Amino acid sequence: MTEQSKGRLVVVGGDAAGMSAASQAKRRYPDMEVVVLEKDQYISYAACGMPYMVSGVVRDADDLFALRIEDAINKRKLDVRLGHEVLSIDPADKKVRFRIAETGLTDDISYDACVIATGAEPIVPPVPGSDLEGVLVLRSYGSGLAVRKYVDQHAPQAGVVVGAGLVGLEMAEALTLRGVKTTVLEMAPGPILGLVPELSRVIEEELASHGVTLLFQTALERVEGVDGRVREVHGGSETFPAGLVLLSVGVKPASALARAAGVDLGVRGAIHVDERAATSVPGLFSAGDCAEQVHGITGKPVFIPQALSANRQGRVAGANAAALIVGKEMTETNPPAYGTIVTKVFDKAVALAGLTLLEAQRAGFDADVVVIKSRSKAHYYPDATPLHVALVFEKGTGRVLGGQLVGSPDAVKRIDVVVTAMSAGLDLEQLSRLDLAYAPPFAPVWDPLLVAANVGKKKI
Amino acid sequence: MTEQSKGRLVVVGGDAAGMSAASQAKRRYPDMEVVVLEKDQYISYAACGMPYMVSGVVRDADDLFALRIEDAINKRKLDVRLGHEVLSIDPADKKVRFRIAETGLTDDISYDACVIATGAEPIVPPVPGSDLEGVLVLRSYGSGLAVRKYVDQHAPQAGVVVGAGLVGLEMAEALTLRGVKTTVLEMAPGPILGLVPELSRVIEEELASHGVTLLFQTALERVEGVDGRVREVHGGSETFPAGLVLLSVGVKPASALARAAGVDLGVRGAIHVDERAATSVPGLFSAGDCAEQVHGITGKPVFIPQALSANRQGRVAGANAAALIVGKEMTETNPPAYGTIVTKVFDKAVALAGLTLLEAQRAGFDADVVVIKSRSKAHYYPDATPLHVALVFEKGTGRVLGGQLVGSPDAVKRIDVVVTAMSAGLDLEQLSRLDLAYAPPFAPVWDPLLVAANVGKKKI
Repeated sequence: MTEQSKGRLVVVGGDAAGMSAASQAKRRYPDMEVVVLEKDQYISYAACGMPYMVSGVVRDADDLFALRIEDAINKRKLDVRLGHEVLSIDPADKKVRFRIAETGLTDDISYDACVIATGAEPIVPPVPGSDLEGVLVLRSYGSGLAVRKYVDQHAPQAGVVVGAGLVGLEMAEALTLRGVKTTVLEMAPGPILGLVPELSRVIEEELASHGVTLLFQTALERVEGVDGRVREVHGGSETFPAGLVLLSVGVKPASALARAAGVDLGVRGAIHVDERAATSVPGLFSAGDCAEQVHGITGKPVFIPQALSANRQGRVAGANAAALIVGKEMTETNPPAYGTIVTKVFDKAVALAGLTLLEAQRAGFDADVVVIKSRSKAHYYPDATPLHVALVFEKGTGRVLGGQLVGSPDAVKRIDVVVTAMSAGLDLEQLSRLDLAYAPPFAPVWDPLLVAANVGKKKI
Repeated sequence: MTEQSKGRLVVVGGDAAGMSAASQAKRRYPDMEVVVLEKDQYISYAACGMPYMVSGVVRDADDLFALRIEDAINKRKLDVRLGHEVLSIDPADKKVRFRIAETGLTDDISYDACVIATGAEPIVPPVPGSDLEGVLVLRSYGSGLAVRKYVDQHAPQAGVVVGAGLVGLEMAEALTLRGVKTTVLEMAPGPILGLVPELSRVIEEELASHGVTLLFQTALERVEGVDGRVREVHGGSETFPAGLVLLSVGVKPASALARAAGVDLGVRGAIHVDERAATSVPGLFSAGDCAEQVHGITGKPVFIPQALSANRQGRVAGANAAALIVGKEMTETNPPAYGTIVTKVFDKAVALAGLTLLEAQRAGFDADVVVIKSRSKAHYYPDATPLHVALVFEKGTGRVLGGQLVGSPDAVKRIDVVVTAMSAGLDLEQLSRLDLAYAPPFAPVWDPLLVAANVGKKKI
């Protein structure tokens, strides 16, 4: 795989996708010059771990780094430049213009190929008071540290989380564990978009039983403060005292730099890439939360910012960009995305993959859903807990289009079976025939997924 | 599905396969007379739960019943006759001859179709002393109760388990939990046939750390006793004091009744059945631990006695036998078997599916295996534990032929992803592209299965 090669790859952004791209290029072509320009002072942090860093479950914030800067430079031989903010990309001259934070000076660097891995940025709802001290978001490592520090310093008695998606629920748990009485405001009628009501209820009850107040169909109206710091939140005609507000209403792709360079944007403003992670502009590649993916069920572009796909797309972009530089064929391709998510909510967990019923119907499928309740273990085994399964399928063919699981944290990783089944195009009949593992400490004789498939196939 | 129908289905054996067959037939044809002849005094017990009943993890032995006899009779309307031992089946006259334990009388019952679900029986090594009191096996519910009662009454200080397969290891744990210092004798060079050495070592260390002595390549020679009760075990030129001996060297199909009725036997003496669970003799079907299955990878008949397949085959046999009686097409088919197993060994667990490397090579595959060590959760998340993965694959194509996992009990159910991949014919490249679930409490960003596939695909 490795061989003599020359040329320079410039990677914009040093998080999961960027560092994966850089590392992959250097691994394949050790003689290639690989430069990573990162505007912040750190690389490769585990964004998904930040709620646990805030809660204190993860004690040492430094543990969140997947790759130490010294190792990136000394072991992987990457030219990583921290505090280098890219200002523009000039595809005609194949140059990247950047500003160095330390000196304030700007400079150019030429490239033979460039990977744009600028990630995503939190959406801040345009409401009055969103700029008050104590109104926080969770995205960058710095923002995570800021939340933890704010809780440490101010020990707010009450807090409001805006948005009941994954991060919102994780932060509701984290804040509760830190002693903050937490209210979650969500505009949708339930937590985690598309979760079927039976499963949603379990998550809602789990949050309520830990003292979290959930308010659905409730829009954030404004935040009010005293001396520039948050004091209360107004939403849904109510007022909530809040020493802290955490905004988690979603993220948007950080694609302004790419757009200014003439790169085509796609769905929801994400950078449009082909299967090889190439953008519409020759020599420019993109990977990670700023880039589109292709959905495995619909075959259509989607914006699903996720850690695994960022790592994967980074490898693909890095390998192909490097191949382009040395004049080799670009052989790597991005796998399709199934939007697989899993998260813990106190002592319960929820996992989803594929399409929700509404998404399936909107995508043109004649779809239905089967919902069952089973157990995580044999009924007589200690600590057997309820496990709820929903499978979305296509009427007529029985093709599996989506899956949802809610139960104890040790039980929901089964979503991966649904992902595998969808990736292979299996239908409910085929799913129902799988020889899944059974022993009393691990499952009932009929695994809950088999029960769901067995019940579902009668509705095909 | 239900309709008017007449005729009589006789089911021989009232455990998982037999009761599944009977229930399925009655559900589809409520007017059909469904008779179950069971030689013991109970039905539908969870054999796999018995080690946990012996250990005391499951306190109430009655919990092991999946279906109460009253419910079978009153709710499911099955004519279940306990203490009815079938002596012979006469396919020419379509009659079954049985003896009633209570009275000692024999009688005949005619059938329109018959399902043979006689199960398997433990192999007792032909060594001197195997008939001593305190030399026990674990198979029937009665045998499980007997082991528990023996430990209750005699509180043996030391015990010997013969055989380090699943049941042997589960019983080593169970006896240890009951305070019995346990030695396991195994003729093979390691526990659980075909487990790769790296994974085997973890299980061996786990057993050793809980005080279990494991002796491999050690044959049981004889058992010696005092006053008819076991006192010591001789094996591998050593002597082991033993107040209890548990024989767990495997099971054989209970197929003598079928053979005497003229039914063709197949692999390892199991009853040969076609895909519809029909035997070679018209009107006779078979399901469960007495019957063959077809292996999903090799397509060849195998003897893999397992709870899930017994339930499944029972449903197929019951549905098809009933269809035959009413003159309908037999539409149900047995799914292929992948030999999926999972078990807990103290605080570790092991799961296997598909072929081991040796089995793959013997089946004619140019096979190889990749073995990796990863973690059950993100490296910074509390209680992240080592997770070992082995994937057996075909050289050239990369087709997945088998999988093995050893790690904490919450991590090894991932074997089901391997089962699904094998069932769909996926190769390592396809496995490596799956969008498996990630969040810090559930997996590293790259799930250990993806790591194994990524490493393995370089060896294809």
